[in-house]
Amino acid sequence: MIKDPSEFRREAHRMADRIADYFEEIGSYPVKSQVKPGEILSLLPEQPPALPEEIQDIMADFERVIMPGITHWQHPDFHAYFPANSSYASVLAEWLTAALGQQAMIWETSPAATELEERVMQWMKQMFGLPLHWTGVLQDTASASTLAALLTAREKCTGFITNSEGFPSASGLRIYASTETHSSIEKAVKIAGFGRKNLVKVPVDKNFALDAEALEQAIRRDLSEGFTPCCVVATIGTTGSTAVDPVRKTGEICRKYHVWLHIDAAFAGTALILPEMRHFADGLELADSYVFNPHKWMFTNFDASAYYVSDPELLIRTFEILPEYLKTRTRGKVNDYRDWGVALGRRFRALKLWFVIRNFGTEGIRETVRKHLEMASWLSERIGESDDFTLMAPVNFSLVCFRFTPSHIREAEHLNELNQELLARLNSSGKLYLSHTLLNGSYCLRMVTAQTYIGQHHVENAWKIILETSKKLNDEKYMG
Amino acid sequence: MIKDPSEFRREAHRMADRIADYFEEIGSYPVKSQVKPGEILSLLPEQPPALPEEIQDIMADFERVIMPGITHWQHPDFHAYFPANSSYASVLAEWLTAALGQQAMIWETSPAATELEERVMQWMKQMFGLPLHWTGVLQDTASASTLAALLTAREKCTGFITNSEGFPSASGLRIYASTETHSSIEKAVKIAGFGRKNLVKVPVDKNFALDAEALEQAIRRDLSEGFTPCCVVATIGTTGSTAVDPVRKTGEICRKYHVWLHIDAAFAGTALILPEMRHFADGLELADSYVFNPHKWMFTNFDASAYYVSDPELLIRTFEILPEYLKTRTRGKVNDYRDWGVALGRRFRALKLWFVIRNFGTEGIRETVRKHLEMASWLSERIGESDDFTLMAPVNFSLVCFRFTPSHIREAEHLNELNQELLARLNSSGKLYLSHTLLNGSYCLRMVTAQTYIGQHHVENAWKIILETSKKLNDEKYMG
Repeated sequence: MIKDPSEFRREAHRMADRIADYFEEIGSYPVKSQVKPGEILSLLPEQPPALPEEIQDIMADFERVIMPGITHWQHPDFHAYFPANSSYASVLAEWLTAALGQQAMIWETSPAATELEERVMQWMKQMFGLPLHWTGVLQDTASASTLAALLTAREKCTGFITNSEGFPSASGLRIYASTETHSSIEKAVKIAGFGRKNLVKVPVDKNFALDAEALEQAIRRDLSEGFTPCCVVATIGTTGSTAVDPVRKTGEICRKYHVWLHIDAAFAGTALILPEMRHFADGLELADSYVFNPHKWMFTNFDASAYYVSDPELLIRTFEILPEYLKTRTRGKVNDYRDWGVALGRRFRALKLWFVIRNFGTEGIRETVRKHLEMASWLSERIGESDDFTLMAPVNFSLVCFRFTPSHIREAEHLNELNQELLARLNSSGKLYLSHTLLNGSYCLRMVTAQTYIGQHHVENAWKIILETSKKLNDEKYMG
Repeated sequence: MIKDPSEFRREAHRMADRIADYFEEIGSYPVKSQVKPGEILSLLPEQPPALPEEIQDIMADFERVIMPGITHWQHPDFHAYFPANSSYASVLAEWLTAALGQQAMIWETSPAATELEERVMQWMKQMFGLPLHWTGVLQDTASASTLAALLTAREKCTGFITNSEGFPSASGLRIYASTETHSSIEKAVKIAGFGRKNLVKVPVDKNFALDAEALEQAIRRDLSEGFTPCCVVATIGTTGSTAVDPVRKTGEICRKYHVWLHIDAAFAGTALILPEMRHFADGLELADSYVFNPHKWMFTNFDASAYYVSDPELLIRTFEILPEYLKTRTRGKVNDYRDWGVALGRRFRALKLWFVIRNFGTEGIRETVRKHLEMASWLSERIGESDDFTLMAPVNFSLVCFRFTPSHIREAEHLNELNQELLARLNSSGKLYLSHTLLNGSYCLRMVTAQTYIGQHHVENAWKIILETSKKLNDEKYMG
């Protein structure tokens, strides 16, 4: 057992080297873990050890048991889901965060964590061109941010009666989002007690963006039937295809009908650091709340979700509790962030954002994001030129949705099967990792080019592997 | 900007030394930050930097700007709130976690994180003598665990109608907890839509433990008035004074009336590692859900909240969502923990628990916890012997609630003021950090002896400072 700082120092240097080695050799690991269900579990003893074990023995088991079960999210050939990026600067900051072991629930328990959070949230408003009257707070995930938005909308809509008396009988509160909206909306709708049937899924246009006219019709229909429209969730960069809902039109409808507007820009929000991308956010000042995740595309370790609101008093009133043991002499003069979300305990998340923003500089972030957009653009051009592949959605950011469509296959069902098989083969190669989605019933491959340390050659290599693997699959299946 | 692993390696070794230095010199820092509101903020530039800055320049600002605003939660003279413990082993594991940057939302995105979590949750059942039929999952905080409990109870009680249709009209669902219960219960009651007025606060006995007879009366009264008792939250180790609610009696009442029983052992749960402490948990097998936080007293960095349920299917059914982009071939064969709580994204939290349990060994944890209990016992004996101090609650674990009661002061109001002043003086000395609570209207000091690396001399020194400071305060105030 490590018992003093000198033993810690020795192990810390070993760990520093192990981690630097990992970053050096990360490209040599299979991107996606190739283990089978239960394989790791079977290698872990069923009883905990009674006696202390040395860190180096634990590390030996780490290499032997844990590493084969790691899917390398920081691998430059990881193109699945959305990234959960880190960066060298962010990792160092996380080390410091772990060492300080702050509990940033209220100002008094960590003035530095509280005030650094306030400052970096202000910085990010400037960096991303967000409305300057907004106020920001860090949450862990977009799920928590969206839940906060829905709860605040619920309380505003019911005059804070739900918090005090419970969900009003036959309130008929309705939430609206597009059919392409993220699953966390439905989860929040259930948690907050609205009920899934009161989540109105609004149709999308051919670009998978919310149809604003259909939204207004849905609101009007609900009003005529006695429902109470409570909140609209619009997305900048849907998870399926990074579609962008029409923010201004949606905002104008929300203002007209006095409905809360929450914007989910969890992934694509980072792109707003580029002035040329801000047209996607036109009308943002009409929103009541907004979330984007620096832990996705801003090179900052998970978890760090930036949540902005136009009226922090409503947020605080929704979550505030004040037990005796948390009363302090500074209350009212400072931000006590435990009243700004679900959790009471809070990590010192602002530190890693401070490290990332300063070590990259805003120009460094801009440059990296721009490169990612260019890579996606390059890939979509290759797909556009190819006779055997089809682009399945507009490439707004750094996600490309496409599929293998050799001309001899006509039936939709066969194409879906073929692409499922292609994805499985690509991912089991260990050379790259893509994920999938369904767009209009079509099974599509999703390839994201937004890893912190991705280079153009990684994208070119991925495209080469996709071409080879699809050709081989097609030959085996149809030409054999 | 750090651009490659070799630069990272250089900075990593510097950071390792800085952090080892911190642990060496931690005793020399003022425990509680002495800055004033706004002081840190005013030292942070209003604009983010455009150009990249070196890590060493950021670190220089860290020392100059951030460190003075740090309240040192890992300081051995930190006795406030409940601790948010770490340990050398846990910090090293957090470094590795940061480097791997796993996103453990589903098995497929990190088989190792998923299966190691399953194993350490099994280990902890054995370590703490928890019912072996329970199933565990890691949440971030007890707030999230308790919210999960209340939501599952809500769904079970309403036949999953709330999730699908919304909170039923006039459901009259009631939640019960003692007047000493943690604020997170009220927060969860509000979030889940029950409404604060449906949180029935049950009186406590002279030891601040829930009065089981009063609970049964409240349930019977509610039933006769048409309410639906939904969930009881009992606490093992309340935040105010670590009182222990009668688990078996409460459990029997819950069984009798078909009410969900959730046990909050956030802090004191760790003490159950000692067989001689398990009498506090007698009847635990009657509970439907249970939470304890390794990040409080089990030497594991925040956040890590262990949540156990007797029926995982109810939990999963409460939270499950299944969008296309998360469908995998392994579904049903493995645990996809994103369906076990609020958040979709999940950190690799099991790693630090694995490091802590193995590096301490269960005997090492036992020994450390036993020492903490002995220190609290020592302190309570000193207070018992003193003419000027009064013990204000039973010392069940490692928290001592007491106050300064010089015999010449009789009025309750004056005693409260005096102790408020005493606490402010103690904390502004920087030499130690205590917090406070109100027990039966009496303002009490709370001193916890549960820091990972606390020694008997720290407690003796704290007692010496308390004696000196209280004497000086008394002399100045009344003898001047």
